[in-house]
Amino acid sequence: MIIFTKTNRMQKTILIGHGSGGLMTADLIRDTFIKHLGNPILEMLTDSAMLNIEGKYFAFTTDSFVVDPVFFPGGDIGKLAVCGTVNDLSVSGAKPLFLSAAFILEEGFPLQDLDRIVKSMAEEANNAGIQIVTGDTKVVRKGQCDKIFINTAGLGIVEERFTTISKGSGIRAGDRIIVNGYLGDHEMAVLAARENLDFDPPVVSDVASLNSLTISLLKDVPEVHFMRDITRGGLATVLAEIASTCRKGVILDEAAIPVREQVNGICEIYGFNPLYLANEGKVLAIVPGENAVTALNCFKQHPLGRDARIIGEIGDEHPGKVLMKSIIGGTRMIDKLAGEQLPRIC
Amino acid sequence: MIIFTKTNRMQKTILIGHGSGGLMTADLIRDTFIKHLGNPILEMLTDSAMLNIEGKYFAFTTDSFVVDPVFFPGGDIGKLAVCGTVNDLSVSGAKPLFLSAAFILEEGFPLQDLDRIVKSMAEEANNAGIQIVTGDTKVVRKGQCDKIFINTAGLGIVEERFTTISKGSGIRAGDRIIVNGYLGDHEMAVLAARENLDFDPPVVSDVASLNSLTISLLKDVPEVHFMRDITRGGLATVLAEIASTCRKGVILDEAAIPVREQVNGICEIYGFNPLYLANEGKVLAIVPGENAVTALNCFKQHPLGRDARIIGEIGDEHPGKVLMKSIIGGTRMIDKLAGEQLPRIC
Repeated sequence: MIIFTKTNRMQKTILIGHGSGGLMTADLIRDTFIKHLGNPILEMLTDSAMLNIEGKYFAFTTDSFVVDPVFFPGGDIGKLAVCGTVNDLSVSGAKPLFLSAAFILEEGFPLQDLDRIVKSMAEEANNAGIQIVTGDTKVVRKGQCDKIFINTAGLGIVEERFTTISKGSGIRAGDRIIVNGYLGDHEMAVLAARENLDFDPPVVSDVASLNSLTISLLKDVPEVHFMRDITRGGLATVLAEIASTCRKGVILDEAAIPVREQVNGICEIYGFNPLYLANEGKVLAIVPGENAVTALNCFKQHPLGRDARIIGEIGDEHPGKVLMKSIIGGTRMIDKLAGEQLPRIC
Repeated sequence: MIIFTKTNRMQKTILIGHGSGGLMTADLIRDTFIKHLGNPILEMLTDSAMLNIEGKYFAFTTDSFVVDPVFFPGGDIGKLAVCGTVNDLSVSGAKPLFLSAAFILEEGFPLQDLDRIVKSMAEEANNAGIQIVTGDTKVVRKGQCDKIFINTAGLGIVEERFTTISKGSGIRAGDRIIVNGYLGDHEMAVLAARENLDFDPPVVSDVASLNSLTISLLKDVPEVHFMRDITRGGLATVLAEIASTCRKGVILDEAAIPVREQVNGICEIYGFNPLYLANEGKVLAIVPGENAVTALNCFKQHPLGRDARIIGEIGDEHPGKVLMKSIIGGTRMIDKLAGEQLPRIC
């Protein structure tokens, strides 16, 4: 006999947490998507699929964007849709080339807003040096979607020597972990816009295309072992996934993690943890210890990496775990995001 | 002084007709998407973008699917999402290889339904011989989308000699127009499911992956001048676009156009025109007159082409126009779909 508890029954439908990028998303991917669609490429669960077509390597990725509100300090859903997909390609070691753009529009959505969003996509595509080459438009009745949803899929080309970067199969003890700047700005900017909060100074989304930064890094430090953009689920989720897949220990130095004072303040008020905040212009890179300073300097010389920091290292102890040495001296374990901090941040 | 009429003001927002695949969609694409994003590849407005990457040719395409209801006779949104993108690649002369799949899910959507949909995608991917290699999941609150929307983008490889097929630049007077079977089944099956109508015998969607059919055709008749899948906007819209872009006349033979008696009957009751009905397993091929019989026989030997017909030809007269010789003897002009017959059919 099976007795369904309330929780059991609730888990029979899609919950907001299934879109968090954290634990529940991972469960859904494993129990539904991988279960049916599983193949060796999909099962890598990397930011982009790595494709070998007639001896050449391509990165291929997709993301749907449902951010609310559509316009926020520092960007809009259009810029986000271009940057998000450019970044998934970039952290896979690819040179992004082409994007698709598919729109689901709610009846009654102002054409002027659509124009502004598409213009923003064009500007960001130009800025990132990619082309939007194919598209689709669907319209649903009022109330059947919320304003505008955009999907972008992207295609980039990858040098053979960089094809393992998205898997992180080269990660080893002694490697250093670097981020290119302050964490949490995007999620806090969206929160501010959604809740009509006035921060002084205002928090602005970090949304940016990272391809010029990652390509610089690959040029200066081709030995890079891993890159990932720190989006939904935040730094903690990315590191928990790495620790788990590469069976190494991650040691994080809380004092070194760059979070703006303001963002920390908002987190305290709202009960958020900055380690789980989403970013849209941040990359986490893992590089051999001997290349760490070169990598850090490479980041610091780039406009998108001025506030870069080395925030931790890889060790042999505590395989599969992320430990953080806290500012006050203790050590605590960090896990993937459970539930969701804020829905519709991207 | 500008005086806004009621119509002017209404057109300042997205209308259902903007998603029809017909005239209003074309206006939106020109006035918003091409205006900002325009580049030589996008401006071809072909089913797939044709990409030349380091000397190899690739077809790249995207489609979002918002069909309502999610399950309908003959298929579901998952099967549709695979077939739709496989078909956009197929009619571009490509061999489809890889698909992405991105899901926007409404909070509360039954996991059992999601499971059934993903299983259906897996079966169709297997059937079409392609792999789904990358994905994304977003969740929005109840009421912020309608159940489930799926985006698929697709990548295929194209032989150089077939790269002009999607443009139709080879179309010339004397070419014959062939379709692979009955028109309108998909839209009528969705209508029946949405409105709880019982047709006897039931109308079943034609949703199917066309790659094995198009690859057979390209093998038997590599001289094919043009292919397109007949989706939103129907046969009339596809032909009006061709006539306009290739500056030739299209002469259609109404008596030869295959439409089931039942579908004609439903059209009469609901005031639809079968020429504008959407299909999800129909291809229109334009072939040189001397290859028409070979092409027709090739279709007829394939399970998805048994009811294929030659339905018209290309002429030098009336460039840019589609004329239909009607069953009762007259001739009338056919234009793109204006407005929308039925929203959310794909």
